[in-house]
Amino acid sequence: MPEGLSYAAAGVDIEAYERVLERVKPLIAATHGKEVAVGVGPFAGLYALPGGGHLAASADGVGTKIKVAIAAGAHRGIGTDIVNHCVNDIATAGARPLFFLDYFATGRLDPDVFAQLIEGMTAACTKAGCALLGGETAEMPGVYALGDYDLAGFIVGLVEVGRRQDPNAIRAGDVIVGLPSSGLHTNGFSLVRKVFEDVPLSKVYPELGRPLGEELLEPHLSYLEPLRTMRWKGAAHITGGGILGNLPRCLPEGLGARLERKSWVEPPIFGLVRKRGRVSNDEMLGTFNMGLGMVVVMDGSDVPSGAQVVGEVVRHSAPDRVMIR
Amino acid sequence: MPEGLSYAAAGVDIEAYERVLERVKPLIAATHGKEVAVGVGPFAGLYALPGGGHLAASADGVGTKIKVAIAAGAHRGIGTDIVNHCVNDIATAGARPLFFLDYFATGRLDPDVFAQLIEGMTAACTKAGCALLGGETAEMPGVYALGDYDLAGFIVGLVEVGRRQDPNAIRAGDVIVGLPSSGLHTNGFSLVRKVFEDVPLSKVYPELGRPLGEELLEPHLSYLEPLRTMRWKGAAHITGGGILGNLPRCLPEGLGARLERKSWVEPPIFGLVRKRGRVSNDEMLGTFNMGLGMVVVMDGSDVPSGAQVVGEVVRHSAPDRVMIR
Repeated sequence: MPEGLSYAAAGVDIEAYERVLERVKPLIAATHGKEVAVGVGPFAGLYALPGGGHLAASADGVGTKIKVAIAAGAHRGIGTDIVNHCVNDIATAGARPLFFLDYFATGRLDPDVFAQLIEGMTAACTKAGCALLGGETAEMPGVYALGDYDLAGFIVGLVEVGRRQDPNAIRAGDVIVGLPSSGLHTNGFSLVRKVFEDVPLSKVYPELGRPLGEELLEPHLSYLEPLRTMRWKGAAHITGGGILGNLPRCLPEGLGARLERKSWVEPPIFGLVRKRGRVSNDEMLGTFNMGLGMVVVMDGSDVPSGAQVVGEVVRHSAPDRVMIR
Repeated sequence: MPEGLSYAAAGVDIEAYERVLERVKPLIAATHGKEVAVGVGPFAGLYALPGGGHLAASADGVGTKIKVAIAAGAHRGIGTDIVNHCVNDIATAGARPLFFLDYFATGRLDPDVFAQLIEGMTAACTKAGCALLGGETAEMPGVYALGDYDLAGFIVGLVEVGRRQDPNAIRAGDVIVGLPSSGLHTNGFSLVRKVFEDVPLSKVYPELGRPLGEELLEPHLSYLEPLRTMRWKGAAHITGGGILGNLPRCLPEGLGARLERKSWVEPPIFGLVRKRGRVSNDEMLGTFNMGLGMVVVMDGSDVPSGAQVVGEVVRHSAPDRVMIR
């Protein structure tokens, strides 16, 4: 590889998306009545219920992690991934999940793949106390190549009265707690697949201690339980865009974050990706979770014993809203 | 074409799907608490709200109609399609839409395609009184070919207390009213694309009176308004599986339907598909809406003036639950 890999070089252009999103935002905003509390931008949309409280909703995909699952012939974890990704998104709004629906599209239905996905989804739904309420299965020969598929998830949760997070309660000096990830979760796979494109999934790197395929397919963790039991002010699910892209989404204007890099353990897969792909530090932090699947902002007095403090909220004046030293 | 085309021959195997669905149904049912009123099967899942009433939810795709839109470079109608498909599904449960989310996945984001889709979705959302609350946009190089994309929709509506349909109120002798479709809507496109694979989209068939591409891309109609204003007992959205596959879904056990074929006007596109593809009558009725986008079951005394009565509910003893003569 002559040059270090980047996410854009791997075929994903987040900036182009952000530009067109600016263009269509007024159209989307025009569909929002007074019931819509939070629209596009944060991790979940909020919709006021007539009887009080809010519904929180989110749509997600698992991205090209699916290609690794197809190559490995192991799909159950992808079902877990999509549910937990969705659960985490609405948990950042203080919601408990009510129900989940899936969209599964493929070139030609492989019953075993479908059954594995349903197994993963139903197990994760049960764990989250969430009903798998429905779904759509589409056979689309001509769009999906034989063996290929895509899986999207939609979740709806309830934010009970008084449980809605108020980001404006966040102050400089608040503490940032990190919740450890299990590895890559579901983001950055277009880049990861480039980095390992010539490596068999069965390869055991000493630092991983298990086959590469298993490491890459480790399911996305759910943070529902800590977010339902801790007292906190804001939370950011670290997904596409990494720590740099996601942490600011839970902070009010004028505030930023300072993180202490050495305060958490980076799982070895990230070092391997950095080294093999010659990926820059900024690119790593702007793409991957780096070991923190969720970061939670809270008052210093609310930090539970044993929690991993990774930084603090600061007044934001520098060009970078998140500083990592 | 040596033989008549069928949906299975066009690469879609509905029976294989139904077999695997039987296999996973117990897993899905195990995720259902007492709040779940209707799970997989009908057009919408129902979830009881703590404060009374139910949420109705549905997930849908637009299938390979997307390939026609890509070939024609016209995507706005696909946005309309996905919203109206979702709106109709939950309208059969007596719901009014609250909010909609989309999942858009593509190989490389084309801002103009995305903007057109959002235009179609937001216009249809506004018409349905529904907020576009969020969505997921995924760039998945390696899954989607350059220029290809997929679009799924997810909708949540509210079934107010007392508005929940009771299929057990349906009696033999009830009247079936048909609501006209605008053409193919969003189903049967894998077959339609085979039928017209060697025909340019610009071709004007005399019976269509406009270019084939325009006819194929005519957007899916919304039946929200008639379903919100009429008094009725059951409704079937005629989507994948056609009239034969969908009408029984709104009928209780032991009841079937007898339809009078001459009672409604079949749009010319269906005759053209039948003729060019040498598609059998049963295949047509089991794949397409044939001119009826929604069928509604009601007491004879509730039929509004001007409504198109297309048949009646009968006791079901014959092997075919829907008889069309």
